[in-house]
Amino acid sequence: MDLDAYLKDCRARVDKALDSYLPAEEMLPAKLHKAMRYSIFAAGKRIRPILMMAACEAVGGAPDAVMPAACAMEMIHTYSLIHDDLPAMDDDDFRRGRPTCHKVFGEALAILAGDALLTEAFILLSRMGEDDRIALDTGRRVTSLIARCAGSMGMVGGQVVDMESEGKEIDLATLEYIHTRKTGALILASVQSGALVGGASELQVEALGRYAKAAGLAFQVADDILDIVGDQALLGKDVGSDQQRGKATYPALLGLEAARTRARELRDLALESLSGFDEKAEPLRRIAHYIVDRSF
Amino acid sequence: MDLDAYLKDCRARVDKALDSYLPAEEMLPAKLHKAMRYSIFAAGKRIRPILMMAACEAVGGAPDAVMPAACAMEMIHTYSLIHDDLPAMDDDDFRRGRPTCHKVFGEALAILAGDALLTEAFILLSRMGEDDRIALDTGRRVTSLIARCAGSMGMVGGQVVDMESEGKEIDLATLEYIHTRKTGALILASVQSGALVGGASELQVEALGRYAKAAGLAFQVADDILDIVGDQALLGKDVGSDQQRGKATYPALLGLEAARTRARELRDLALESLSGFDEKAEPLRRIAHYIVDRSF
Repeated sequence: MDLDAYLKDCRARVDKALDSYLPAEEMLPAKLHKAMRYSIFAAGKRIRPILMMAACEAVGGAPDAVMPAACAMEMIHTYSLIHDDLPAMDDDDFRRGRPTCHKVFGEALAILAGDALLTEAFILLSRMGEDDRIALDTGRRVTSLIARCAGSMGMVGGQVVDMESEGKEIDLATLEYIHTRKTGALILASVQSGALVGGASELQVEALGRYAKAAGLAFQVADDILDIVGDQALLGKDVGSDQQRGKATYPALLGLEAARTRARELRDLALESLSGFDEKAEPLRRIAHYIVDRSF
Repeated sequence: MDLDAYLKDCRARVDKALDSYLPAEEMLPAKLHKAMRYSIFAAGKRIRPILMMAACEAVGGAPDAVMPAACAMEMIHTYSLIHDDLPAMDDDDFRRGRPTCHKVFGEALAILAGDALLTEAFILLSRMGEDDRIALDTGRRVTSLIARCAGSMGMVGGQVVDMESEGKEIDLATLEYIHTRKTGALILASVQSGALVGGASELQVEALGRYAKAAGLAFQVADDILDIVGDQALLGKDVGSDQQRGKATYPALLGLEAARTRARELRDLALESLSGFDEKAEPLRRIAHYIVDRSF
């Protein structure tokens, strides 16, 4: 399979669905909907929705059935970026080469656009089961999974510990605590939600959970490596920005070579988790390679 | 019936349920859970959960079945207060006599505590239908209703227009646009959710929707009146604070006496909406009186 074409195709379908689900820019209050759309359509890689679609496909489901949940996931991811960029948090003026939401729309509207995107995600999730493409209890379980992974013991909790750790010496256990929550939790929720919508067995949901945990952490290790050796275009942020902030990273804690070994181990763990799956899991396999190999 | 005793009893049940649903303070990250609990247990009147319980009762439902949704509603209300109080928004140092969340925990943690409370609300809502006390489709409809009322065309939208209008001359139509969304939307969602959980007919859901719209607006008119003539203890904020901020109010637009007439009309409209209900709707009737009569 051609991974680039697969990613491009998925991205186009996600973008189209996001456009149809989000309130139009002229809907009142127009400025709020403009801010929401500005951040959603800021050249995101749509990695979480794509993982959801690929996981759904891996268990034999039709990837279009996950579209509401996939778009909800992208809205949650985007709200977290808007709030992370705020002056009171990371105080970032640029993201992916464009001014951040609060630089364009002001701080108050950026806070509210984030709030509205998080809420909009649950408007979308509550549509699952409205028709008979998805069973009501599956919709409920997916909503519960996504909310738990996004909440105080998931993504938000990871962000809090990350913030508290800035400028401090932290150990590997704390670094993994942060990553499994701040970025890992939404990746786990994406993969397992896709599996649930696709009609996976409990065993398949578990195996895909192992895949997601390994791939999610591998993604972070690779990101840390790229922050040192990568080029800006691939990374989507300034090279060296983690070091400047005094953020703990895998290469800083383990050394560059050991970090690369860790990334490879995690990739292999992700691939092993898919051993019981047939060729329909090929996109997930290729994504695991892609995540890690870009940092070599 | 003794309304004070009823409100006190409901409040105690809501507080107990909130305590059991929210992650304990020692759960990691402890600071985040402390901030969430600090704001939730800040002497709130629990008016939205109580309306939900009363609406459930009015249609013959057991009010305990609405407890997850009622607590979710209080979490959404509380997150909106935390974010409204932020320096970039209303910049309030005190609420109900206590320092606001960001004054105690810092701005970043206040933003994240708000985010976590909003997310926690949907964790709770996704529990509806887990057992057979609530039908799965009812759970889905309630989640959808609450999310829509809290989102960009509901509460958050109202807050945006309120913010944009500060210090400007606005007309009555804009004022009502703000109120029906900023505070009215959650009141509508509370009453109709209670009805849905209680097994209401579509006609009953509609009638209770009319009740909620009238009572919600009456509440706001009464609040505006109290801001001028009331005492601080009853109001929960400084008397005269709306005028200081240059906020448009009903008395400012209509005059004090006309505002009082409007409050009474809205109260009577709320009561009329309940004409098809028996004595089980007595708490809702008494609440409509209570909302308005305190401003006389």
